[in-house]
Amino acid sequence: MENFNIVIIGCGNVGGGSAQIILENATELRKRAGGKNIKIKNIITPHPLRSSKKYNLPIELFCSSKTELSKAQCDAFIKKELKDPQINLVVETIGGSTNYIYNLHKSILNSGKDLVTANKAILAKHGYSIFDFARQVGKTVGYEAAVCGAIPLIKVVQDSFTGDIIDCVKGIVNGTSNFILSNMKKSDISFDDTLKLAQKLGYAELNPAADINGMDAANKLKILIQLIYGIAATEQEFLVKGITDVWKEDFMVAKSINSTVKNIAFAVRKKDKVYACVQPFIIKDDDLLYSVDGATNAVKLSAKHSGEHIFIGQGAGSQETGSAVVSDIVFIAKHGHIKDLTDNISPVKYKLSDFANYHTSYLLIIKTKDNPGVIGTVGTALGDVGINIENIPQSIISGKDWFLPVEVSSCSSIQMDKAIGLIRKRNPKLINAYKYIPIG
Amino acid sequence: MENFNIVIIGCGNVGGGSAQIILENATELRKRAGGKNIKIKNIITPHPLRSSKKYNLPIELFCSSKTELSKAQCDAFIKKELKDPQINLVVETIGGSTNYIYNLHKSILNSGKDLVTANKAILAKHGYSIFDFARQVGKTVGYEAAVCGAIPLIKVVQDSFTGDIIDCVKGIVNGTSNFILSNMKKSDISFDDTLKLAQKLGYAELNPAADINGMDAANKLKILIQLIYGIAATEQEFLVKGITDVWKEDFMVAKSINSTVKNIAFAVRKKDKVYACVQPFIIKDDDLLYSVDGATNAVKLSAKHSGEHIFIGQGAGSQETGSAVVSDIVFIAKHGHIKDLTDNISPVKYKLSDFANYHTSYLLIIKTKDNPGVIGTVGTALGDVGINIENIPQSIISGKDWFLPVEVSSCSSIQMDKAIGLIRKRNPKLINAYKYIPIG
Repeated sequence: MENFNIVIIGCGNVGGGSAQIILENATELRKRAGGKNIKIKNIITPHPLRSSKKYNLPIELFCSSKTELSKAQCDAFIKKELKDPQINLVVETIGGSTNYIYNLHKSILNSGKDLVTANKAILAKHGYSIFDFARQVGKTVGYEAAVCGAIPLIKVVQDSFTGDIIDCVKGIVNGTSNFILSNMKKSDISFDDTLKLAQKLGYAELNPAADINGMDAANKLKILIQLIYGIAATEQEFLVKGITDVWKEDFMVAKSINSTVKNIAFAVRKKDKVYACVQPFIIKDDDLLYSVDGATNAVKLSAKHSGEHIFIGQGAGSQETGSAVVSDIVFIAKHGHIKDLTDNISPVKYKLSDFANYHTSYLLIIKTKDNPGVIGTVGTALGDVGINIENIPQSIISGKDWFLPVEVSSCSSIQMDKAIGLIRKRNPKLINAYKYIPIG
Repeated sequence: MENFNIVIIGCGNVGGGSAQIILENATELRKRAGGKNIKIKNIITPHPLRSSKKYNLPIELFCSSKTELSKAQCDAFIKKELKDPQINLVVETIGGSTNYIYNLHKSILNSGKDLVTANKAILAKHGYSIFDFARQVGKTVGYEAAVCGAIPLIKVVQDSFTGDIIDCVKGIVNGTSNFILSNMKKSDISFDDTLKLAQKLGYAELNPAADINGMDAANKLKILIQLIYGIAATEQEFLVKGITDVWKEDFMVAKSINSTVKNIAFAVRKKDKVYACVQPFIIKDDDLLYSVDGATNAVKLSAKHSGEHIFIGQGAGSQETGSAVVSDIVFIAKHGHIKDLTDNISPVKYKLSDFANYHTSYLLIIKTKDNPGVIGTVGTALGDVGINIENIPQSIISGKDWFLPVEVSSCSSIQMDKAIGLIRKRNPKLINAYKYIPIG
């Protein structure tokens, strides 16, 4: 029986989960890999003993049975494996976007091995260059696990949307921030308190920066935009907001218009332009994304011919992400690099445009003091810059503060900023704080 | 530039939609098909002129410019195309499970062409044999469009769940019946009245039998069970119920336990057994399927490692289903029959078992007259056959009838039938009508 030999570099949650799945389901994987026996030849990690125990993996699979290895020792093991002609594929699950990882990816491909990775940070930064290099050396990169863990978004776009054109991507792609927002809504507590709870329950890391500042979501969106619209991640700079500025009062206002607040990774195609952002959105209760709570991920793809699709699943977790890694290994074992996983699906050269020019309806929320004339001043300023008011929901009183919500019809954030400027000029004390959130 | 030449047989909604997409998106398809130019060489239909007008397709693409062709004339065109070595692939969108279609599929494959079809009826009846024949002659069959239209279920199972084992399939796979049930819930009207409305709005056909009796859903489930569990459709006989016996009172009862009624295609793996059925289910409001209303389809796949996935999209429609047909054409154009689309993913020989033996919680609803002792008689009978009562929601009075709901914990339908038998024996007049609906 033919073996398909792999090496796993890094044995944290994803590497460990992937190894477990491979060992546990050998028969299934052999059938699906066209009869090839997927075999772990080596797991290279600085902590072999600890990883072996933690993930219940035989120590013989590891590069060494020592407690700790130095970086140089790990590198020596990597070098040796990359020289071994029997190794078919290398899995990188170290993570991070350092030069070390970038060079590791290139070394793996250059040594004639295919590469599978769950590393979204490196692909968002250097994906175009890594993919290009892979094509040059005739190898491929599987990265299903890098975007929304278990949700098979990458292959769905690569193989199933080929009869269509994707007009819009709209997703809840960070489980930690969705968990926090879901709990803020449910329990009517502040962002800070909810974050502490999420950390206690293990839904947020001790250093949750990338999750709550939107960067993790932005990395996933960058990879999707590259795949769908052919815009290299390096050419991408778009608006990225996290959830740290979401007020509990936002949920009260949202509720009054049958909506909630979700942090959304968003990209939309308009002729040859693509507008993209990560930021909180107002999501109406007739949108299925409204009900996606907790750490679950969900991505809506709207397509020209086939209409609206929603893909919901687990965006993180050891075995959840591991299953996506293994599906890539099986795919490559079966097909080799016949199929180029790294190619984008767009024949058109789209241009990423500033989201500030994109027109959408917004919910403006002004934190102020209740006094006569506030609505008049706000309404006049909006009108002066050509923004129509759709609806003024009931104001919220919370503590000593008064929150004035205004729903406006389609306009750009440039117009919104102008209106805010006018209000501040005409009445410098009116706005204590404000925000405007896209509705959609 | 290399051409990939196709012939489309049948030009109804799906064939017409597929042709439109191919003509409209030539540049995109070429890029995705690895540079091959997908070219419609002939559309064969008995009504060339009508189809040309209806789908706005150039008459030159059709086999003839005549108003009507006889079956023999169509067959002569088919025969000629199958002999043409320049034709790479044939799309069959006539539909139906007749011997004519079965033989047509075999002729197409035997003539050395790959086959793409949206025909679920023929695949549910003869899929195993057609797939087997395709493997014998070294050709492949694309059938993404046959199950839930635009939702890319087939390829997701074939390529993205290869690192996992699917434990359960639970889906809303018939848009017509979901439209009817959604409207019964919303408007509190009877099945018959809602069906008339659905027919008026074009959501139900004049002969809606296969949609409302569950057979259309059963055909889709058969294809999925074959793909996922390797059980040939011909070996499959399972419980199939439609929605004709859903009462408007069922929704009232369901609402009182924060639930609704959906017709569900269901299959679950227990060791080496698979239990399957199509029937109405009670769906709780914390299940995302609860909110899937109207003609939309949704399928939940629960997998051992990656947890719960939900795929939502349009299960029918001309361009919606057409986009799935075209994705198969592109896939085969790019990969040829390197990749066997017809293989199932299971190395284990599963056995389809009688759903009557499957244990699940049920909602029993008894239509009766309000009189003392009813609950006692029902409760005693359930206890006598070993069924535990979980909850007795408030009874519903509707017209002259009294509906007694009882939620019971996990048991088989064999036990439920025994309990009903006991009640009837002890009090022949108690039950006017009854039903028990799986909860889950």
